[in-house]
Amino acid sequence: MAALNISPASIERHYRKLDKIGVAGSTREAGYIRTAYSVEETSVIEYIAQAAKGAGLLTRCDGIGNLIVETPGNYNEYVETGSHADTVPFGGNYDGLAGIVAGLEAIIMLHRSSEVLKKGLRLRVWRGEESAAFGYASMGSRGAFGCLHGPALKASYKGHTLEEWMHRCGVDSECIKKGVPALSQEEIDSISAYVELHIEQGNFLEVKSKDIGIVSGVRGPARYLVHLMGEFDHSGATPMGSEYRKDTNLALGYILVALHELAQEHLNKGMDLVQTMGVINSINDLNDKYGEVYKNAISKVSGFAYFSFEVRSCNENMNEYCKNARLLIEKKAKEMGVETHIEELSFTPGIDSLHMEIRESIEKSCRETGASFLEMVSGAWHDAAVIAEQKRSDGSLIPSGLIFIPCRNGKSHSPDEYSRPDQIAKGAIVLAKTLLKLAME
Amino acid sequence: MAALNISPASIERHYRKLDKIGVAGSTREAGYIRTAYSVEETSVIEYIAQAAKGAGLLTRCDGIGNLIVETPGNYNEYVETGSHADTVPFGGNYDGLAGIVAGLEAIIMLHRSSEVLKKGLRLRVWRGEESAAFGYASMGSRGAFGCLHGPALKASYKGHTLEEWMHRCGVDSECIKKGVPALSQEEIDSISAYVELHIEQGNFLEVKSKDIGIVSGVRGPARYLVHLMGEFDHSGATPMGSEYRKDTNLALGYILVALHELAQEHLNKGMDLVQTMGVINSINDLNDKYGEVYKNAISKVSGFAYFSFEVRSCNENMNEYCKNARLLIEKKAKEMGVETHIEELSFTPGIDSLHMEIRESIEKSCRETGASFLEMVSGAWHDAAVIAEQKRSDGSLIPSGLIFIPCRNGKSHSPDEYSRPDQIAKGAIVLAKTLLKLAME
Repeated sequence: MAALNISPASIERHYRKLDKIGVAGSTREAGYIRTAYSVEETSVIEYIAQAAKGAGLLTRCDGIGNLIVETPGNYNEYVETGSHADTVPFGGNYDGLAGIVAGLEAIIMLHRSSEVLKKGLRLRVWRGEESAAFGYASMGSRGAFGCLHGPALKASYKGHTLEEWMHRCGVDSECIKKGVPALSQEEIDSISAYVELHIEQGNFLEVKSKDIGIVSGVRGPARYLVHLMGEFDHSGATPMGSEYRKDTNLALGYILVALHELAQEHLNKGMDLVQTMGVINSINDLNDKYGEVYKNAISKVSGFAYFSFEVRSCNENMNEYCKNARLLIEKKAKEMGVETHIEELSFTPGIDSLHMEIRESIEKSCRETGASFLEMVSGAWHDAAVIAEQKRSDGSLIPSGLIFIPCRNGKSHSPDEYSRPDQIAKGAIVLAKTLLKLAME
Repeated sequence: MAALNISPASIERHYRKLDKIGVAGSTREAGYIRTAYSVEETSVIEYIAQAAKGAGLLTRCDGIGNLIVETPGNYNEYVETGSHADTVPFGGNYDGLAGIVAGLEAIIMLHRSSEVLKKGLRLRVWRGEESAAFGYASMGSRGAFGCLHGPALKASYKGHTLEEWMHRCGVDSECIKKGVPALSQEEIDSISAYVELHIEQGNFLEVKSKDIGIVSGVRGPARYLVHLMGEFDHSGATPMGSEYRKDTNLALGYILVALHELAQEHLNKGMDLVQTMGVINSINDLNDKYGEVYKNAISKVSGFAYFSFEVRSCNENMNEYCKNARLLIEKKAKEMGVETHIEELSFTPGIDSLHMEIRESIEKSCRETGASFLEMVSGAWHDAAVIAEQKRSDGSLIPSGLIFIPCRNGKSHSPDEYSRPDQIAKGAIVLAKTLLKLAME
């Protein structure tokens, strides 16, 4: 295989332009606001399309405004990469965008090389991967495959529905309204493989000093809101003990510890799992709804509390784990004389294993590049996970893979989010070599 | 000793009038707003003065507007009772008022009886015992003995200072400004004993099915606000374990459990103690100040949390206990990689033992009345605790005692607060018999 190279300078060249799109304040330190189907997201798509055309690649959009960049030529099959152009409000400029820039540079480099490919190459620039604005994740990729339906169009952000945001970008909403794929069946069947590069959004690679994470599986999230109802009482006059007190805060303490111990047990047995109690009593909208939380006082036994409880796993036992965790919450609360109501907000099963041959191709490409690597699961959800679940006409799943690069201090969804140009470039080379292998099969 | 009786009907007669003063809404179910030095507190004082005069008793006010009711005659010494006329905002009509009504009926009954007393009898109707409005507790009784100072006059409630509220009631603020007693030294020296009746504000008497609680000591409160600072991280991408996470919510769970276990250990060793973590992340003003708490999210490892931590004890080791608790909080937080800041809000030492002879007099009076009783500590702070700390010219402490009666479901500081007329009447008889014993010594 010929020596393929992508320079940090070529990555930086794109960022000099992209760093200016959708900045939340006067400097990039303020973070980015580039929500789904916004003018800013569209501007990123337009920049990428221009850059691709300038390098001799073809561009078009699918039925719901996702950009498609492809190599010219007459191919029955395409090896694809891609990532998303949107950000969470006040997010960084690497979650999604690093994968688009790396993917574009990889395809440009392979297009310019002397390699003779059996398959075409495509970059997909997805819209609306983040759920922060409308509450729906991976809208662009789900919509492309017919997995996003009418009700999503009614979801609202800043006073306008998703449908209105789409129309303001000149994007049609019919496919979503009908729940049909925005891609033709022929195009879906032409997808030979999909490999996405993404920043890790955690600090595992950094802590372990590795260049590349080869993602084995993608964790799906299950999210719950747990309400605890006890009784408000005088903190001085009410003796201690559950005979006298129905103390929601104390129950909450015991429940958090019990949940953590349950997770530890399962981690020790080798189950893939992260568990987080992210919020206690501090969701503004909920507090307005549940005014009870403001009846708590320093000199009262607490009578109401709530917390969020999230489990992410790519293990098939995730559902079983969540059931046990819910039973444990109810048991511990009961021991403390406190009532519970557990509300399931969402349950998305994880992907146990991404395509094994793609994982092997990424590993070979790392070795050829001299990039250090390890195998890891993805804690965050990604468009690659949507595509891994899509079937072609013959019933076969689209082989899908995911490459992680480090991000500074593991920060993401924050203005502090950052990956160095040389880190992105090294990832882009591994991606290019992987795409090449898959395109030569 | 003659048969002394106070009927539930005589208690009810007062409540028919008092139930109408300071109601927060259209019916008494809305609770009461009768804050310190308000028109409503003054109306209660006026009603009690009228009722006392009608029964042939003398009335006057001290230098800061506390009402004094006394039996006519020429006495060097007085046996006193009393309680407070104010309520917390949206409180009930028994915290304080039950003791005033019982005290008035006890004195009227003894005044009408054929008993020949060696000492006069006095009822003191204190103002401003509740700290809810101005942040200062027992303002009336502290001010009477010179224990309330100038800065309190600047404390503000509903846009007006305490001094303004006092002046609007026609009450002078000079004594507080100068920090001198509102009672003459002669009057202070004339106080032979002080015995207060109060509702329990807990459910201990109700759970134990007793008519009377003989209060042995009064718990003093120590209050802290504990801030936990960690790091916000992606909940899916950040592996579990303190190597990767600085999770304030999980630390909070472990700290709450550790504090509870510490308290249990000391309770098992016989220490008097109640400990309460009353608020987690839900004090509105603090949340506006510490916006960090709103950065927590369901899909983030939490980076900021706070909780309140209150210890109440009448044990001399309370300070030692609080020190150990603070060290434990710091140790547990450190184990979880989380930083702490512990702010001491207040520290009031408790009263280890109220006057032993008064406690014995109350016990004898219970036996004579056929009232079931038990000895207990007071978890709440009361005017009786202020008076227990006051010295006369000869250096002797004023002997002080406290009688509890049950309140329904232990509820207080709530519109649900309630004691039945027969429960108050039974307490009033025990109080009367106790005052009589002390006045015949």
